[in-house]
Amino acid sequence: MKVLITTVPFGDKNRSPIDLLDEAGIEFVINPLDKKLTEQELADMVADYDAIIAGTEPITDYVMSRASNLRMISRVGIGLDSVDLMAAERRGIKVSYTPDAPAPAVAELTIGLMISLLRSVHLSNLIMHRGEWKRYFGRRLTETTVGVIGLGRIGKRVLNLLETFGTPRLLVNDIVTDKEIGRKFKIEWVTKDTIYREADIVTCHVPLTTKTKNMICREQLESMKQDAILINTARGGIVNEAELFDVMQAGHLSGAAIDVFEQEPYVGNLSDIERCLLTSHMGSMSIDCRTRMEIEATEEAVRYLTGRALEGEVPEEEYAVQREGL
Amino acid sequence: MKVLITTVPFGDKNRSPIDLLDEAGIEFVINPLDKKLTEQELADMVADYDAIIAGTEPITDYVMSRASNLRMISRVGIGLDSVDLMAAERRGIKVSYTPDAPAPAVAELTIGLMISLLRSVHLSNLIMHRGEWKRYFGRRLTETTVGVIGLGRIGKRVLNLLETFGTPRLLVNDIVTDKEIGRKFKIEWVTKDTIYREADIVTCHVPLTTKTKNMICREQLESMKQDAILINTARGGIVNEAELFDVMQAGHLSGAAIDVFEQEPYVGNLSDIERCLLTSHMGSMSIDCRTRMEIEATEEAVRYLTGRALEGEVPEEEYAVQREGL
Repeated sequence: MKVLITTVPFGDKNRSPIDLLDEAGIEFVINPLDKKLTEQELADMVADYDAIIAGTEPITDYVMSRASNLRMISRVGIGLDSVDLMAAERRGIKVSYTPDAPAPAVAELTIGLMISLLRSVHLSNLIMHRGEWKRYFGRRLTETTVGVIGLGRIGKRVLNLLETFGTPRLLVNDIVTDKEIGRKFKIEWVTKDTIYREADIVTCHVPLTTKTKNMICREQLESMKQDAILINTARGGIVNEAELFDVMQAGHLSGAAIDVFEQEPYVGNLSDIERCLLTSHMGSMSIDCRTRMEIEATEEAVRYLTGRALEGEVPEEEYAVQREGL
Repeated sequence: MKVLITTVPFGDKNRSPIDLLDEAGIEFVINPLDKKLTEQELADMVADYDAIIAGTEPITDYVMSRASNLRMISRVGIGLDSVDLMAAERRGIKVSYTPDAPAPAVAELTIGLMISLLRSVHLSNLIMHRGEWKRYFGRRLTETTVGVIGLGRIGKRVLNLLETFGTPRLLVNDIVTDKEIGRKFKIEWVTKDTIYREADIVTCHVPLTTKTKNMICREQLESMKQDAILINTARGGIVNEAELFDVMQAGHLSGAAIDVFEQEPYVGNLSDIERCLLTSHMGSMSIDCRTRMEIEATEEAVRYLTGRALEGEVPEEEYAVQREGL
């Protein structure tokens, strides 16, 4: 039994997931390229492995066709946009994930990014490291209307934190209207268009699917307030990067925080826009959440390879999203 | 009656304070140098004015000696380190301030700086704007022990926000032990030395006095954990900048956020340290708090100049601090 661990870093801050594999006597290899793999790199690497403990690299039908022994994919994290679930199902490959583990870290980072953007911390830091001084005016969260698109595990946590800061108006949108959240928080269920038009801060917490791909393009960006702020800690591709560049380059939006990109590592012209706060897909990268994700994904792979029942199998709804393009 | 407004910007995002002066028929001049004044610049400017609506520039005995008409100083903000209260008292010059207005903005920025530093947002943004990519590991606030030095208006608000994020251990220090706060929050009253030794994040919310000047020097910095984080949104001079540079240059501390400096505008070698997050004295610079500070300070000057009772006079305790070097 051999496991390929593609996600890096792995077992870096906490060795527990590596110990789990050692104790179960399972042979493993950690991604020797030490970066997010392309489809071809993964395809060239995957032969002979029984399971993949996977990051966000593309696990396509082609990749699976090159992995004749592959019986299980255990995703470290929540998004399944990188895995062709239909192909996995057809080939009888089980897929598990760790949907709860990343949420606290992503939500907390999102709040930090909001405050940084509202107070121009990123801009002030850039110019002070050049020896300049400028006192930027900012706003507090109590002075803003926040629009949250996607009220899953992360969106709910973002709402919870915003309540403490006293954000007076919370606009939310999701494909399903969750009545319980409506009772817990003082929120307004609105259309996405209303969020773009009326929110001072727009933050996305949706998965990447055929429906959310390019959800925020030029039209949506231009309908946002002149001084609005956009945050994407969800998935690259939800916000169209080229059009975000054009719109910001033209002077629209007071700031954006982009943590996720269509191609990672990101190389692109958003780096030329100083009011665009850029981070390297670090939403889930707190030691506690990352460790939990790695341990849960490893435990699941060990369960499968030692013939025990799975606990984190991807539910039917996720297959339906890909099958029906929801 | 003539008022000199030294703090800049003033009436910039909200004209109300200027309208208040106009309506009262009070002549005023806004700092023509459009920057924080030195003692000499202020001394050269201050003759003939009856009141100063003041920022943090030094209002010393020498300055007052050059202002034969001066009867009142109305500080926009809370700190009184810039005003020689003993000299003002001797000369019969009234001093008022706006101690409550800045607190919410400073506390919220402090939390934002904590998250930025814990997650290396500032570092990731710097290197991504250079076209590089690195996934930094971070910690959540639930993974840290936070030490708060100074439990006044701002320190209490910081505690309140930290509670929502679930910080498990809160170490606090103040010259007086406030039992009510101890009932409201799960905190430990400890010495400052314990805070330096045990906290992952040390944040200062004390005024600048003879007792707090250079409160955090090499010895304190070196006693902090190797990967600790230091935040100063209080006043420059509380943390010794030259020694902070030396200690960080030598590799100690994982980060620092410095918003206030001994000399402002700041020019110095902390700019050479990328893991030092620098901002330009922006703690109170949210539109709502800044506007409230300007309006309150202006109302107070108008009250004085129109013969009405003051509402924001600096209390005896603040005089005692300077008189007795507390």
